[in-house]
Amino acid sequence: MFQVTRRSAMKIAALAAAASSMGQAAFAAEPSILPSWVDGDAKARIIDFVSATTTEGGPDFVEPADRVAVFDNDGTLWGEQPMYVQLAFALDRVKQLAPQHSEWQTTEPFKSVLAGDMAGVAASGERGLIELVAATHAGMSTEEFERIVSDWMESARHPASGKPYTAHIFKPMVELIDYLKSNQFEVFIVSGGGVEFMRPWTERVYGIPPQNVVGSSIKTRYELRDGVPAIMRLPEIDFIDDGLGKPVGINKFIGRRPIAAFGNSDGDFEMLEWTTAGPGRRFGLIVHHDDAEREKAYDRDSHFGRLARGLDEAPARGWTVVSIKDDWKLVYPE
Amino acid sequence: MFQVTRRSAMKIAALAAAASSMGQAAFAAEPSILPSWVDGDAKARIIDFVSATTTEGGPDFVEPADRVAVFDNDGTLWGEQPMYVQLAFALDRVKQLAPQHSEWQTTEPFKSVLAGDMAGVAASGERGLIELVAATHAGMSTEEFERIVSDWMESARHPASGKPYTAHIFKPMVELIDYLKSNQFEVFIVSGGGVEFMRPWTERVYGIPPQNVVGSSIKTRYELRDGVPAIMRLPEIDFIDDGLGKPVGINKFIGRRPIAAFGNSDGDFEMLEWTTAGPGRRFGLIVHHDDAEREKAYDRDSHFGRLARGLDEAPARGWTVVSIKDDWKLVYPE
Repeated sequence: MFQVTRRSAMKIAALAAAASSMGQAAFAAEPSILPSWVDGDAKARIIDFVSATTTEGGPDFVEPADRVAVFDNDGTLWGEQPMYVQLAFALDRVKQLAPQHSEWQTTEPFKSVLAGDMAGVAASGERGLIELVAATHAGMSTEEFERIVSDWMESARHPASGKPYTAHIFKPMVELIDYLKSNQFEVFIVSGGGVEFMRPWTERVYGIPPQNVVGSSIKTRYELRDGVPAIMRLPEIDFIDDGLGKPVGINKFIGRRPIAAFGNSDGDFEMLEWTTAGPGRRFGLIVHHDDAEREKAYDRDSHFGRLARGLDEAPARGWTVVSIKDDWKLVYPE
Repeated sequence: MFQVTRRSAMKIAALAAAASSMGQAAFAAEPSILPSWVDGDAKARIIDFVSATTTEGGPDFVEPADRVAVFDNDGTLWGEQPMYVQLAFALDRVKQLAPQHSEWQTTEPFKSVLAGDMAGVAASGERGLIELVAATHAGMSTEEFERIVSDWMESARHPASGKPYTAHIFKPMVELIDYLKSNQFEVFIVSGGGVEFMRPWTERVYGIPPQNVVGSSIKTRYELRDGVPAIMRLPEIDFIDDGLGKPVGINKFIGRRPIAAFGNSDGDFEMLEWTTAGPGRRFGLIVHHDDAEREKAYDRDSHFGRLARGLDEAPARGWTVVSIKDDWKLVYPE
């Protein structure tokens, strides 16, 4: 994977150098760039930003070392409807483990999970969610958890399409990741999701290696099990990489302020604010879920109302709002 | 920097592919590899490992994506005598800030620091050390701290040599980093030192970018200061990346188990144990400080006795012990 990335980077670095010296026109005229994007304002803004920051000698040129781009995952790189994929994983784990936990028949949030009563699960609140994470994400080694996640991603199916969840990645966004990488941007995922839930498959699905994935985490402990070293997952939250936590996570794991940030909910607001408040040319983008036909039209009334602020302030902050309905020719890979 | 790295990577990837197909002989015969290393057992073991893991079709071949190497910093990549460089930084900060803190004249550990009484500082124990960190490493934004560290690295001088601390990096180890990178290894620093104390200069000095530096950290908080986003450094320990913490830090920040680990103290023991316990070809190396003339002969009697175990168990575990006296032609850059 890395080899391929490296090789393609070599090939494309030359192209990019040539193209960028020609400026935006060269890109706009190049049909192979962002093929799933409608030739509209959003696509033009992306190409203009990349062209400006990669044109040597230009006023907005950014050294490759500083070309850091961060992407949210749920709702930005893949679907988060009807529920976060990681929540679907947790619910399946509860059903799978229930035979060894007869007490779950009478204790929340497990009782509601087993009854398929999502309202009951939600009613158990944050404490219920943490118990759910502890019961389904902890108590095994990191390598055992990686296998559990990989096996589930292979077998689980999206309730609407009957396809694997990885079939619900947003093709236009994956094209955007490749476009940035081909212009010597280093791309990171910065997600509220669990880092060890994402790392087993992000390289295969998005071309983003484990070390470029930042997310929420639980505590772990190094120990010898029968003399064999293992890193055990503990039932204790370590870091929540969401909202105010995203700039903190970016600073902790990446150590550079990005120049481009891509999100879809107000859990991404501070990440976009931190990124675009820096000096020099910056780029912020919000994926606007307004396509009732091909995905789902949900926004202000979802994410516990956490989408309103970013959409309201996007114009004043110069952030690009992408309409799935109008800006994407395709939503999912075919 | 990234551009240079990327470009040299392109060039060398071709060379490496050609050379590795020729096997170890090609490397051993190549004088430009590890020029500051004596042609002895340690150098031969390093070259043999790299040759074996990069020889396509060979029994020990490792995909480039899995070629992760981790290096301790203090005592492995640069000197840690007469004291950790970060401690020298903290002591200088106390002296610099003392005029605004008259109370320090009478309260430990500051009183001892200002009196130059290191025994007194040590006597204040872990609690004193944490107060020292809080007073010197917290209370400012991450960008302000980066400037403070960069300015200090420019102006501070090593007590013995009168040279900048960055003149005390170990040239043979920097050659080793470059050799691994040229063979498509991704190299990370995994240090007990503060991650934000290292990131401002590791790229310039070692060629290792901020996102490839793992270290100890304090908590931070994202906030708006007069409407300007900032990440503030709080006087609270977040993570200690030492001993048992190193495999935890590797898993948290890198998300892959390395195949090669390089250290010098028992603070690196678990990192070497975790790395070399994995399947397939592995490499562990301990830098043995036995050169009284060119550096300092210190080992079992230092690091609070934390060097003994690694040296004792190295032969049985197949770890390579590097004698600075016998294996290095040069210690520092000229």
